Amino acid sequence: MNKIYVVGIGPGAYEKMTIQAAEVLKNCDVIVGYTVYIDLVKEHFPGKEFLTTPMKKEVQRCEMAFEEAAKGKTVAMICSGDSGVYGMAGLMYEIGERYPDVEVETVAGVTAAIGGGAVLGAPLIHDFCLISLSDLLTPWEKIEKRLKLAAEADFVICLYNPSSIKRHDYLQKACDLILQHQPENLVCGTVENIGREGEKATIYTLKELRDTKVDMFTTVFIGNSQTKVIDGHMVTPRGYRI
Amino acid sequence: MNKIYVVGIGPGAYEKMTIQAAEVLKNCDVIVGYTVYIDLVKEHFPGKEFLTTPMKKEVQRCEMAFEEAAKGKTVAMICSGDSGVYGMAGLMYEIGERYPDVEVETVAGVTAAIGGGAVLGAPLIHDFCLISLSDLLTPWEKIEKRLKLAAEADFVICLYNPSSIKRHDYLQKACDLILQHQPENLVCGTVENIGREGEKATIYTLKELRDTKVDMFTTVFIGNSQTKVIDGHMVTPRGYRI
Repeated sequence: MNKIYVVGIGPGAYEKMTIQAAEVLKNCDVIVGYTVYIDLVKEHFPGKEFLTTPMKKEVQRCEMAFEEAAKGKTVAMICSGDSGVYGMAGLMYEIGERYPDVEVETVAGVTAAIGGGAVLGAPLIHDFCLISLSDLLTPWEKIEKRLKLAAEADFVICLYNPSSIKRHDYLQKACDLILQHQPENLVCGTVENIGREGEKATIYTLKELRDTKVDMFTTVFIGNSQTKVIDGHMVTPRGYRI
Repeated sequence: MNKIYVVGIGPGAYEKMTIQAAEVLKNCDVIVGYTVYIDLVKEHFPGKEFLTTPMKKEVQRCEMAFEEAAKGKTVAMICSGDSGVYGMAGLMYEIGERYPDVEVETVAGVTAAIGGGAVLGAPLIHDFCLISLSDLLTPWEKIEKRLKLAAEADFVICLYNPSSIKRHDYLQKACDLILQHQPENLVCGTVENIGREGEKATIYTLKELRDTKVDMFTTVFIGNSQTKVIDGHMVTPRGYRI
């Protein structure tokens, strides 16, 4: 049976990929992906055929992968982080219904929350949630509701897609909603360019974060009521007595 | 400076570890961990010194790691999945305050939500949260509140530690709380023994899941209102038009 692997390559640096992901990319015929991610892996897998589509051409990218697999090639569709977290894995299964002769297998990777958490310290040790602030595919009202309820539940919150040119004030809006349930001095953090050149972690209070501009290559972490700063690291205790 | 790496080894199988994690384990002097996890990695890193403590001896395990590092050895403290998600990373930074001459670095890994999601298909494509049902270190009232608010927010919910001998009815209790906001036919799934021998994914409705017994090696996935079953896989759409 023809096969497509949907592979999360992790945050960016080659060594943050799983051994399995690297094996799949080494053994496939064609690697398909968003231009930026193909550029990240290209040098490590010489001799492969690379196919790309730009942003907002996700459906075409998936169809391209299935067409290549239907020709009998082994295909890897790559995503940054994990392909199952705001990645292509869902769309691949949906479009896969049209290609019953192609089998889809998902290969897990380190998503930005996990990769960025390791850079900051240990912010995600206890219950947490991931919320994307992008309202391209999700109504803003739904995002607002999730932010408010997550803050009320005292989850650690990790925000994906916190900003874009059109959505320059979304992080501020999100912080204002969270401030309805959490204090101004709540420990927060950001990580820019996780696992890539220019990686940088910064710790803020929630009030400071509200007044900070971040770019689209930044992942945002909002602590819970127990989160603290230890020696420059953002740490959420699990509750062990020490 | 003496150094301890807190390393997530992923779900279990060697190839699901990151390349970086394998490099750290290959280059360190001592590997410290819970007995079960040491047994998973031992054969791949011959010649290392291995130190273990049993469950509920987490504080002692961390202290042991710092004592070894203080002797000048390079130490790796391993956790299953990611060390920053219900793992040892938080406790290591907390105990690290007593050992100012030892530097702690966290190495990210694939946590059970991500690893198990890949086995089921793509359940975590959209906003989701992780909740542990273990009330050893967290009051049950707090867990209940998080379950209710997460269901109200229509998050996909991934449950860690869904059961133990003492907590045999906790999954049922959790499902009953979620049923206050979500329908009986909500798509759910479980994965047993992720990345290990006996790996097994099963899809349920929320009603069926409520009446199912799971063990402590199972990770539970509760869909959102959009989650569906495609060709035996649990898939949450992101919202692309196809």
